[in-house]
Amino acid sequence: MTDMELIKDISVSSPTKIVLLVIDGLGGLPDPKTGRTELETARIPNLDALAARGICGMADPIAPGITPGSGPGHLAVFGYDPISSNIGRGVLEAVGIDIELQQGNVAARGNFCTIDEKGIITDRRAGRISTEKCTELCKLLNEISVRGVDISVHPVREHRFVAVFHGVYDSADITDTDPQQTGVPPADVKYLGPGAIGLSKHVKTFIDKARELLAAHQPANMVLLRGFAGKPRFPTMQEIYKLNPLAVAVYPMYRGLARLVGMEVAKTGTTLQDEFDTLKQNYKKYDFFFLHVKWTDSAGEDGDFARKVNVLEQVDAALPDLTGLEPDVLVVTGDHSTPAVLKGHSWHPVPVLLCSKYCRTDPVQAFSETAFLTGGLGRIQSTDIMPLAMANARKLTKFGA
Amino acid sequence: MTDMELIKDISVSSPTKIVLLVIDGLGGLPDPKTGRTELETARIPNLDALAARGICGMADPIAPGITPGSGPGHLAVFGYDPISSNIGRGVLEAVGIDIELQQGNVAARGNFCTIDEKGIITDRRAGRISTEKCTELCKLLNEISVRGVDISVHPVREHRFVAVFHGVYDSADITDTDPQQTGVPPADVKYLGPGAIGLSKHVKTFIDKARELLAAHQPANMVLLRGFAGKPRFPTMQEIYKLNPLAVAVYPMYRGLARLVGMEVAKTGTTLQDEFDTLKQNYKKYDFFFLHVKWTDSAGEDGDFARKVNVLEQVDAALPDLTGLEPDVLVVTGDHSTPAVLKGHSWHPVPVLLCSKYCRTDPVQAFSETAFLTGGLGRIQSTDIMPLAMANARKLTKFGA
Repeated sequence: MTDMELIKDISVSSPTKIVLLVIDGLGGLPDPKTGRTELETARIPNLDALAARGICGMADPIAPGITPGSGPGHLAVFGYDPISSNIGRGVLEAVGIDIELQQGNVAARGNFCTIDEKGIITDRRAGRISTEKCTELCKLLNEISVRGVDISVHPVREHRFVAVFHGVYDSADITDTDPQQTGVPPADVKYLGPGAIGLSKHVKTFIDKARELLAAHQPANMVLLRGFAGKPRFPTMQEIYKLNPLAVAVYPMYRGLARLVGMEVAKTGTTLQDEFDTLKQNYKKYDFFFLHVKWTDSAGEDGDFARKVNVLEQVDAALPDLTGLEPDVLVVTGDHSTPAVLKGHSWHPVPVLLCSKYCRTDPVQAFSETAFLTGGLGRIQSTDIMPLAMANARKLTKFGA
Repeated sequence: MTDMELIKDISVSSPTKIVLLVIDGLGGLPDPKTGRTELETARIPNLDALAARGICGMADPIAPGITPGSGPGHLAVFGYDPISSNIGRGVLEAVGIDIELQQGNVAARGNFCTIDEKGIITDRRAGRISTEKCTELCKLLNEISVRGVDISVHPVREHRFVAVFHGVYDSADITDTDPQQTGVPPADVKYLGPGAIGLSKHVKTFIDKARELLAAHQPANMVLLRGFAGKPRFPTMQEIYKLNPLAVAVYPMYRGLARLVGMEVAKTGTTLQDEFDTLKQNYKKYDFFFLHVKWTDSAGEDGDFARKVNVLEQVDAALPDLTGLEPDVLVVTGDHSTPAVLKGHSWHPVPVLLCSKYCRTDPVQAFSETAFLTGGLGRIQSTDIMPLAMANARKLTKFGA
């Protein structure tokens, strides 16, 4: 991966425009019945035409064999080293429900759980209480006051919530209270460095008060917290690339990730067409656009091959809305593969296509995993995508004399 | 990139010979009228035959998207990490006019400029005085004596010169005096670390004396210095590779770069044929030859597609002179791409061909960017080229037992 400091040194602002279309979970695997992947099954004439015009290849989000979560997958595509910039669980959960964190805040993933009269955990998920119940109990927890810090508790779904400690902590380096097993009591909070002493005290007090407040709320009579994490201190995309970037995404997780790297986040609707329309409406005001399509990944996660094919065809049909804007650089890729046959994210490299006047096109004529194997980009890392897009947009000057 | 220490540990001296032909700015982009790149337009039967015999691929000098200057481009091909071994501007300028620096010396790029009676810069280039005038004024500056150091001033062209401080400095870490704008006075020299205190004093005194000496020489009545840099402390190619290397290059910049990594530099003429003749004459005495062809890059920089094609055809015609020597390993590559349509260096990967008895040839039959995409080398980094050449010359032993 190219060092971000290097990119920062040589990047320059310019009026050219870059569109980065991330089709979540883009790569796939063959349907055993047909031998063809989702991309090879879908009728995607516009993507095929783009492949013929552009330069194609395969990208490893992290490294061969490594399956990325949504966080590292996107950070890599944004050009951030996905390993060193990995985001803590608490922050990803917070971001996933549209909570804006301030520098110094610490977030944790929470579970309502059941403990017996001796304080032993009997159910880590409190019988999967309803989301309504969760919301009600979070309201209760929001009444807790701990000296020296504001704490907010946000329902997620069923037994899950996010707790945010709105302090200015030096470190989030404390241990989980969730022992990840039943038959034992919740673990004590321990700080792992002097910068986390204050936080550990606040968390202890919060948990003690939560225990009191929840005593009468069987089965959700206790909380477990894990994945304490502070808002990461990333350099922004403005700092690194001198871009004025806009994110268009329906799902909060991706809006949140975009916000963490400094993107402005557009208000948009709930459909693919809403997203494309939003991009179009904002096209004049920005020079970089991250457009996120979620539904390919959801279909892949559900193991629904046909639905993933269908979403790919929808994206293809909407594509002229993007190409019609004639961006200087158009990149189409994914954050990772989500083959329907695996019903989940996978380690397989992700197709990547770049289209620009100076891309040095290759002989590839179709948008698919197999066709891209002989593409001009070869096999790159996802972190190479942003430097390539920047170069093709003529936004990088020469390195060294 | 393979670590140089590793290569140093396993390299051995042997009688086999390696020829590294660097065709400057080798890669290109299609002529919009024909859709064919410079290499695809040129008639280069000898290079094509070599591609059929050898193993081919594409190399990134630095990383995808990064456009290299001549310094990093060549250092990468010589196997040096082009980022950590980046050479300061002052040294590159010095090297570019054939100045030999000693360890500890510091060189800076200089401009003659114009200041008004208040000391404000009104023209950073002193109206681009003639090279003759520059030479005359450099003679004047050479009379400056600063206690504790010898200083030499060398004309480059028009208002440009190189100043060399022949001390034994620990560091060149001082700020530029060139503010890169008019309407302000020249900046004061500041040292950025204790190792540069002595240098900053010498530079200050030099500049004060230059101001006095030049007062009567309107419009060139002041100097601006930037890019202070010491001779880099590279391990030599002898140390790393145990080679006895010779450089054959017409242009001083490339002779200088070769000297910085320990190559001996041959006296040669001014033409391509002179270079090939020089290599032939010295063939017995060395085991590694760096042969540099500049004119492809010059044509690319000028945006002259046809001339670049023509130079490629000239190189092709001369090639039998090299292949006739039957070197154990012949590598043909470039330091970066210089597409005529971009009129400058570019970020595109560079074709690389390696021919040896043991190269494991691939099906590639033509020497071009597109043909090389399916070559056996795949997409490598330029720093991989030297280890590959060394291995094919049987000059690397096994790593590990």
